[in-house]
Amino acid sequence: MNVLGMVVEYNPFHNGHLYHLEQAGTQSNADVVVCIMSGPFLQRGEPALVPKRERAEMALSSGADLVIELPYMFACQHADIFAAGAVSICRELGITHLNFGSEHGKAAPFVQLVDFLHTHRGRFDERVRFHIQGGCSYAKANELAYRDLEAPGSLPDLSQPNNILGFHYTNAAARMYPSLHIGTIKRKNASYHDISPRDPSIASATSLRHMLERNEDISAYIPEASRRILAGLPALRYWEDYFSVLQAKMLTMPTADLASLYDMSEGLHHRMQRLMKEATGFGQWLQLVKTKRYTLTRLQRTAVHLLTGLTKEEAHAASDGQHVDHLRVLGMNARGRTYLNKAKKNISIPLYTKMTNKKTPQLAVGERADTAYALLLPPSERQKEWRRDYDLPPLLLF
Amino acid sequence: MNVLGMVVEYNPFHNGHLYHLEQAGTQSNADVVVCIMSGPFLQRGEPALVPKRERAEMALSSGADLVIELPYMFACQHADIFAAGAVSICRELGITHLNFGSEHGKAAPFVQLVDFLHTHRGRFDERVRFHIQGGCSYAKANELAYRDLEAPGSLPDLSQPNNILGFHYTNAAARMYPSLHIGTIKRKNASYHDISPRDPSIASATSLRHMLERNEDISAYIPEASRRILAGLPALRYWEDYFSVLQAKMLTMPTADLASLYDMSEGLHHRMQRLMKEATGFGQWLQLVKTKRYTLTRLQRTAVHLLTGLTKEEAHAASDGQHVDHLRVLGMNARGRTYLNKAKKNISIPLYTKMTNKKTPQLAVGERADTAYALLLPPSERQKEWRRDYDLPPLLLF
Repeated sequence: MNVLGMVVEYNPFHNGHLYHLEQAGTQSNADVVVCIMSGPFLQRGEPALVPKRERAEMALSSGADLVIELPYMFACQHADIFAAGAVSICRELGITHLNFGSEHGKAAPFVQLVDFLHTHRGRFDERVRFHIQGGCSYAKANELAYRDLEAPGSLPDLSQPNNILGFHYTNAAARMYPSLHIGTIKRKNASYHDISPRDPSIASATSLRHMLERNEDISAYIPEASRRILAGLPALRYWEDYFSVLQAKMLTMPTADLASLYDMSEGLHHRMQRLMKEATGFGQWLQLVKTKRYTLTRLQRTAVHLLTGLTKEEAHAASDGQHVDHLRVLGMNARGRTYLNKAKKNISIPLYTKMTNKKTPQLAVGERADTAYALLLPPSERQKEWRRDYDLPPLLLF
Repeated sequence: MNVLGMVVEYNPFHNGHLYHLEQAGTQSNADVVVCIMSGPFLQRGEPALVPKRERAEMALSSGADLVIELPYMFACQHADIFAAGAVSICRELGITHLNFGSEHGKAAPFVQLVDFLHTHRGRFDERVRFHIQGGCSYAKANELAYRDLEAPGSLPDLSQPNNILGFHYTNAAARMYPSLHIGTIKRKNASYHDISPRDPSIASATSLRHMLERNEDISAYIPEASRRILAGLPALRYWEDYFSVLQAKMLTMPTADLASLYDMSEGLHHRMQRLMKEATGFGQWLQLVKTKRYTLTRLQRTAVHLLTGLTKEEAHAASDGQHVDHLRVLGMNARGRTYLNKAKKNISIPLYTKMTNKKTPQLAVGERADTAYALLLPPSERQKEWRRDYDLPPLLLF
């Protein structure tokens, strides 16, 4: 039995995602398709435009059979931790094939790259450190280190964001779950950062978000189900909507508490706090805080942890950065449910199809992230969303 | 030279306050009148209806010559700490006469009561502890302890809120500043908790706040200057307006940080946090949390410290609960300024007529309280208020 796993954000679900789902299903000859999906906050340190329940619905409407949440402790993280968490879910669920979108488009070179690194780890790390000390970002330092070690030329270009993620999936699989088949589909037309679409039906999620912010019609780029689900939402969620809460938290937090936040480094919290008093919006604040050392993505993730109140201590107690400690089902169809019932007996960690008071450390941290995600709503609406997240069973789409 | 000091909140300034100012001035034959005024948060754990600058203006418009802020570390506190802070300001400023409003109306019995207690301290404290252990509030336990020790019958009734404050001023003066003359004016007509006025021109501040909440006209009960100043404000500030921020902070704060808040006791933070998720408004939340042990006033003060983020550690580092560590001038007229220039040479702590970056610990804590006070405003307005509080010189009314 072939069980396809895909790690997704669907922010929002669009025709490119549909293309990937279909192609990956065919390529792996999948009997069941499992989406491992980020919850309220995404890998690049942003709130999801659309709550996870609706994004799960988009996935189930377009070919997924089961949607599992990638816990907050892994979803809003550097690519290596993000990938490790996803692969640990693959292993728990007995997923046989993992497929990711990439700029490169061929799977074998990713495996080759991981092997290459396996052999040259020591020298590679030394080169990465060297370039980081020279002022490079982590991604750039990696790229330069490959060059320094004269890696084979056909290897995936790690300055491309989807290649980076693909590399980390492959690497995590080699380490934690070597029997997982790695597949990739070449991304069609739109690169991650594209803002204006170059194809009549496919645009990147980034460009769609920009269009949505400008109130432009994106229905040509998304499946009908996505369109219907988006239309049913009272509002989409952007960082700017959280600025007021973020500012309130940061400016009334004792310095010691601020310094104890996860991902907060010495000096940065003073800078963030001082400039917070000068800013009147999230984007403006980030531009003020940004330096060569602190990229926007890095700062956005730190802002997420400020919003959710995650501390270093809690993070270290909750996660080793490698393994999820629970599985939370966001949605499924009949096929997904049948598969889950079968897979259950091999799952070694708590499986939440409904909520109980007994929550694993990562789920407890995740609950606070869900709580924070609703803070842009007025108090009466916040409560409805919290109840929806924790009192309702997962979405069933039969 | 007679320098009259009065400890005030003016929330808002009304005809009863005007009566007190005039009577106290006459009684003490005052050359200068100094108001020691709470800043953004008040003794009973409430945000001031009106910013301190405007309340200082009301005071200066009605007979005060100099308005000094009672620092947050003393303003939002039990009566004994509140009173000690105020008396320490009196001593620094060379105030000769302190006058308070009371239900009792005569000064000598307050002094007598303090003497009585001085003699019976040990047994009195033992009786207070006994009654607190029996489940009484602090105020009730005090009252019962006096009865137990058969204190003289003409002593002020300490179940009355203004008598309690008066007692604590007198007590603090006996301890810290024995040369301070104590005077009191009997409160006219309206008791502190009165909601409906019984006199054509005087109503309590509480009843006026209730009238304001219902959008009723209070101009019959306040001086013309207060009316004009109130009319010039974009909005008045109530606890309910802060609920959204309070909820955001409480629900995304790690348990350890919550437990470290000033005035937060073991168990209470769990109760407050759990019930916070169920409430949609401040009043509703407080009613849910309230128990026999935790009075509304106590809970409101804790809510203020949550809003301002004050921790036990910061509080203990900033204050001994007895002495203010700075004087901040909120406003003055020519007479007030002349007096201040003369008094300056005897002031042993930093005097802030304009702000500098070098802030005393209590002022730093107070700045965060000012920051929190503006959080009900939209981000662009918050900033204006912060600048007004820290970039403008004190109000000069000549």
